[in-house]
Amino acid sequence: MAGNTFGKLFRVTTSGVSHGPGYLCIIDGCPAGLELSVEDLLPDLRRRRPGQSKLTTQRDESDTPEIWSGVFEGKTDGTPIGILFRNSDQRSGDYGDIKDKYRPGHADFTFDAKYGFRDYRGGGRSSARETVSRVAAGAVAKKILALAGIRVLGYVKQVGDVIADVPDPTAVTLEQVEATPARCPVPDTAAKMIALIDSVRMDRDSIGGVCELVATGVPPGLGEPVFDKLKADLGKALLSLPAVLGFEYGAGFAVANMRGSANNDVFVPPEPHESPVAPDAADCNTAVWEPHHEAPVRTESNRHGGMLGGISSGMPIVCRVAVKPTSSIPRSQRTVTRAGEPTEILVKGRHDPCLLPRFVPMGEAMIALVLVDHLLRSRASRLPG
Amino acid sequence: MAGNTFGKLFRVTTSGVSHGPGYLCIIDGCPAGLELSVEDLLPDLRRRRPGQSKLTTQRDESDTPEIWSGVFEGKTDGTPIGILFRNSDQRSGDYGDIKDKYRPGHADFTFDAKYGFRDYRGGGRSSARETVSRVAAGAVAKKILALAGIRVLGYVKQVGDVIADVPDPTAVTLEQVEATPARCPVPDTAAKMIALIDSVRMDRDSIGGVCELVATGVPPGLGEPVFDKLKADLGKALLSLPAVLGFEYGAGFAVANMRGSANNDVFVPPEPHESPVAPDAADCNTAVWEPHHEAPVRTESNRHGGMLGGISSGMPIVCRVAVKPTSSIPRSQRTVTRAGEPTEILVKGRHDPCLLPRFVPMGEAMIALVLVDHLLRSRASRLPG
Amino acid sequence: MAGNTFGKLFRVTTSGVSHGPGYLCIIDGCPAGLELSVEDLLPDLRRRRPGQSKLTTQRDESDTPEIWSGVFEGKTDGTPIGILFRNSDQRSGDYGDIKDKYRPGHADFTFDAKYGFRDYRGGGRSSARETVSRVAAGAVAKKILALAGIRVLGYVKQVGDVIADVPDPTAVTLEQVEATPARCPVPDTAAKMIALIDSVRMDRDSIGGVCELVATGVPPGLGEPVFDKLKADLGKALLSLPAVLGFEYGAGFAVANMRGSANNDVFVPPEPHESPVAPDAADCNTAVWEPHHEAPVRTESNRHGGMLGGISSGMPIVCRVAVKPTSSIPRSQRTVTRAGEPTEILVKGRHDPCLLPRFVPMGEAMIALVLVDHLLRSRASRLPG
Amino acid sequence: MAGNTFGKLFRVTTSGVSHGPGYLCIIDGCPAGLELSVEDLLPDLRRRRPGQSKLTTQRDESDTPEIWSGVFEGKTDGTPIGILFRNSDQRSGDYGDIKDKYRPGHADFTFDAKYGFRDYRGGGRSSARETVSRVAAGAVAKKILALAGIRVLGYVKQVGDVIADVPDPTAVTLEQVEATPARCPVPDTAAKMIALIDSVRMDRDSIGGVCELVATGVPPGLGEPVFDKLKADLGKALLSLPAVLGFEYGAGFAVANMRGSANNDVFVPPEPHESPVAPDAADCNTAVWEPHHEAPVRTESNRHGGMLGGISSGMPIVCRVAVKPTSSIPRSQRTVTRAGEPTEILVKGRHDPCLLPRFVPMGEAMIALVLVDHLLRSRASRLPG
Repeated sequence: MAGNTFGKLFRVTTSGVSHGPGYLCIIDGCPAGLELSVEDLLPDLRRRRPGQSKLTTQRDESDTPEIWSGVFEGKTDGTPIGILFRNSDQRSGDYGDIKDKYRPGHADFTFDAKYGFRDYRGGGRSSARETVSRVAAGAVAKKILALAGIRVLGYVKQVGDVIADVPDPTAVTLEQVEATPARCPVPDTAAKMIALIDSVRMDRDSIGGVCELVATGVPPGLGEPVFDKLKADLGKALLSLPAVLGFEYGAGFAVANMRGSANNDVFVPPEPHESPVAPDAADCNTAVWEPHHEAPVRTESNRHGGMLGGISSGMPIVCRVAVKPTSSIPRSQRTVTRAGEPTEILVKGRHDPCLLPRFVPMGEAMIALVLVDHLLRSRASRLPG
Repeated sequence: MAGNTFGKLFRVTTSGVSHGPGYLCIIDGCPAGLELSVEDLLPDLRRRRPGQSKLTTQRDESDTPEIWSGVFEGKTDGTPIGILFRNSDQRSGDYGDIKDKYRPGHADFTFDAKYGFRDYRGGGRSSARETVSRVAAGAVAKKILALAGIRVLGYVKQVGDVIADVPDPTAVTLEQVEATPARCPVPDTAAKMIALIDSVRMDRDSIGGVCELVATGVPPGLGEPVFDKLKADLGKALLSLPAVLGFEYGAGFAVANMRGSANNDVFVPPEPHESPVAPDAADCNTAVWEPHHEAPVRTESNRHGGMLGGISSGMPIVCRVAVKPTSSIPRSQRTVTRAGEPTEILVKGRHDPCLLPRFVPMGEAMIALVLVDHLLRSRASRLPG
Repeated sequence: MAGNTFGKLFRVTTSGVSHGPGYLCIIDGCPAGLELSVEDLLPDLRRRRPGQSKLTTQRDESDTPEIWSGVFEGKTDGTPIGILFRNSDQRSGDYGDIKDKYRPGHADFTFDAKYGFRDYRGGGRSSARETVSRVAAGAVAKKILALAGIRVLGYVKQVGDVIADVPDPTAVTLEQVEATPARCPVPDTAAKMIALIDSVRMDRDSIGGVCELVATGVPPGLGEPVFDKLKADLGKALLSLPAVLGFEYGAGFAVANMRGSANNDVFVPPEPHESPVAPDAADCNTAVWEPHHEAPVRTESNRHGGMLGGISSGMPIVCRVAVKPTSSIPRSQRTVTRAGEPTEILVKGRHDPCLLPRFVPMGEAMIALVLVDHLLRSRASRLPG
Repeated sequence: MAGNTFGKLFRVTTSGVSHGPGYLCIIDGCPAGLELSVEDLLPDLRRRRPGQSKLTTQRDESDTPEIWSGVFEGKTDGTPIGILFRNSDQRSGDYGDIKDKYRPGHADFTFDAKYGFRDYRGGGRSSARETVSRVAAGAVAKKILALAGIRVLGYVKQVGDVIADVPDPTAVTLEQVEATPARCPVPDTAAKMIALIDSVRMDRDSIGGVCELVATGVPPGLGEPVFDKLKADLGKALLSLPAVLGFEYGAGFAVANMRGSANNDVFVPPEPHESPVAPDAADCNTAVWEPHHEAPVRTESNRHGGMLGGISSGMPIVCRVAVKPTSSIPRSQRTVTRAGEPTEILVKGRHDPCLLPRFVPMGEAMIALVLVDHLLRSRASRLPG
């Protein structure tokens, strides 16, 4: 059973490879009545796009989507949304080295092992270019979330040994994130990240990092125990992205060295004159979603990252993912041929010296897809009325 | 859409709460012909069981499964395996405090928020007792994996600030793990963990930790890009367990501060006279599974944790999860009532001061469920013959 | 991928065989807040039960369900509903003939072919006794449907060459159906059916028939094109029952000889002073479901059986299924052994001479499961508000 | 939860409407290694195509597929197969009448009721043009089935009161079916059908019929009790097609008037010198699928239509579907407006006077999709080796 569909009620199915005609994406289960046009998809696609700055690859990819169905007279009509992206940067190139040698850190060998052979033109299906479909679908999901007062935002928390101090993740704004090509909302830290990435690039190397992602306005009650807990589905969503080797939420791995008395978040009454569950809902004056269930409580701290028992608590959801350094580096590396003979390989092409800045919209998209799926799923958890 | 089924081809569906008559577990999709009896389920259930040592809760739970169907004349017969566990420790108790107050760190509030009310007798559905079903199903999965030469083993890597040094995770044996109640395979470290847990218990507190899990003998080719990558499904499986706040594999979060030139695992030819993909297969002289696809290569190091592009590489799968300190501690804690009034709560009952030792078989079970599911799924990825 | 789960949002998973300890049934996805007790399940289970009259088998089966979870203080609590049935009529019998010979019309051979061997104690998994779980789950579904003003009712339309004339299927009442053991609402026809079944039984034979099923109060809008059309899911549900060889709805196979001008149902305005879509809703004064979408139209006739384009139209859903004569007949029949040698077999035991009367609650249950699943699914087809 | 994906292991997801840019189709789960090109899809697409004869609509639709991914160097590569069809016959027309009035027999009203509004340009998503994707996917499925020695063939059994006498459905050849535009393999009957359809067309009317479908070479063991029985999934597949109001297999509705002694198919030894389960396998000299499980028996007759207990028996699968007369007829019909006002409508455009001839490849495609899905599913029902 192959795995190119994501989600249960809001389902995204994709196809496509980096050096074929293009990518197809079908979103099935988007509720009818959502205002939607190609323009809604473009901002996040631009953030994902290569060539934005010297921090990212200079490849020229056409990331303009075409919506072939599912939208009628400016609104989703309940039928599946068909989106396609044409590939433009298909150089009829010489893939010889990739064809017969396994690039370290890439999926060349594992695709061969799984399917018996592989599309050796670039990464084929394992190319990160497939995330155009995810980001487009995520943009649709974000529009639905906005109607429910939910906002998803990510930023670069760490690159190499440069770590941003973000005391209140929920206070970060999109403008702060987009202010620098590093996508780190702390200006000084962003400058250090840029300098580090630049030096790594000059050194013909790459560097890893951490992306932090925050969802505010999430009503309590999302998540389906015992297997489809919200934390589990968020973890899966982010780990399905290329280059992600770790996921944590709330206090994360730091809980290993904490005591229960220090880690437990105590419940307190909601602050007066404030909705405890959707601090950003006020930004969303077009909200049409049904009123949130009332949440008579909040927690004083948020080491639980907005999820208890795998169900959202109404507190902000905060998580982090570890992204490895780009596997493609402009250096000769040892490897073997398909026949198992030792050799060396020099991976050609233009690659990001650090994946983190472009990762941000991908991470946001996956969070958004999970949240909208669980928002729709949660509607069946109680009798209406 | 509720979430009490796990897996696609090897599907586990469970029901039950901590203070009702018992738990039901239906395994659908277990191939016919597997030798199976209740005895096969007992060892891991005993490892999961409360009351094993002073490190674990002294509650007495009857964890004896009854197999009601799916096994005929000693073998699975292809029909769904029905298993039930009777609850024996149902004290007709006074749940008053839990009924009206939210225990910090627990799912009391979020269940109320999601479903409108909740079973307040203990944790109800969110009680970790539901993992009896997972461990039983995992034991069945392990039997299938053994036929394919795959072994899954976990151990306690960290408790508080005590961290075990395990240079070769694949060399750890079940005997080493079970040698101490800490389930840490390094004897000196195990002793320190035991001392730490004991002091925490005396201090009426709890402590977190890290469990490391290893799967050896995994053939290359398991995992279904782009969404059902093996790393994504393993992450989901482990994050669906109670108290898990983080998951990482291979180098994990350490990649954030690594360069590509240092992180990439270079490919090398297989060692002579050795099967590169299934080092433990020789242990399994009853293997009946089809021969592994040949793997002409291996990697010199294993920072990729046995997965590239979300597909197993034939190298050992190594991952870690962060487990929070037990939320139930024998101290008075601040909280609020269901009506939102500030109050204090003293959680009664007997609880593990550290979840890690009993977590090991739960983590192993989830790994086993994912691997057997993907083993079955992988059979459809190529034409036969 | 095995097939023991039915439904997408209201999911029923079952296990069990006729001669093991019993059957398990887990209903996942029942919304919280539904009043439910064992008593709600009993009426339909009694209708399904063997031994009701001389028309049905005289086997004594214990069909008393135990609810182990999912209901708390009289209401569903959102967690999976675990139900079990103990088998009581397990004679430690001599199954020798079945063990080695294939009963004509039964699944003995196909189970052997699929799984390599089979449980030869009675029908094993293929015994119609598994429908106890379906009928219990269907009773839960009916309770939800009642809240939405939907009623499902079936009756015996035909036995052999005796055919009931039911000019208005929506006017049939449960009392009329239950008035005779034939479950045919037309008294004279029922009497003829009873006489026919009795004569067939005396002749050591069995006889087939047709069951007609009607759902009233179904709001327009249920069904999910293009693959999960309501007609497709109803067809699958009924064809999954033992002994069903055909399904049709509305005009059914009669359309083969109709012209479009005669078959098309013309649209007309709703009748004054009448809700066009839910004629039975008035019976349901406890309805808590959200108000139906307004339906400004109805059709003058109902050859479309309440579904257009695979979506419910608001008109009554009417369908029929063909049920074959019981395969077990008290006569010697030719067959072969497992080794392929010609032989004869005399099937022992007590069997229904006609399956139709007991089929009615099974058919109703499957209709109810499909409708409640699509009712829940339909909530995601539009933005709320 | 929307319904635009079909299948479990061989999964087809589609999008598109009749008057948008085109249709997308993603096949996920096609095993790697299958030789495939656009040419493989064309024959069945041509059979489905409008404008083949005066019996079918004269619309000109471009049914040329483009394969965008999933095939590399002439073989499927395990990644999802992306196919697109461009719409060419998009007249920027006047849809006024359809926009505000409900066409009798069509899904206009039910789409409005479900989604709040609808694409009124032609049938939108409910147009039968969506079956281009099904037929293309079915052609891929047929190629896999051929490797396993399985052949699927359909033909027109009945149009109006003209019924073909086909004593041995398994003896019909594709050439016989394609010999006339009626797609009835009996020449005399085909001529009568053509005359009838022609007279109906002259009469500005339409006519219904029955399509019979046969699968030979199906090994015993396909089908997954108790819910995903082969008969249930075949029924769902065919009922998901537009205009189908009934499905039956084997003796079908005729069992209602049969006795068990006459209906039971007795088992007999296989005929000497003949493989009992795959009569057509000899035609398939490229078969690479694993050898069939041995089937030591066959049945003397085939009233069970090749399925017992919902599992294939090795005997030919034979089923029939009832197809209604085309709803679009060139006559004025009574109806109501969206506002519920009585009116008349004259549906414009060119429509098939009888759907049956073009239905044949659609029905075959759905059978093929089910069989390949269950063929892949069945590989998990036993331990390998």
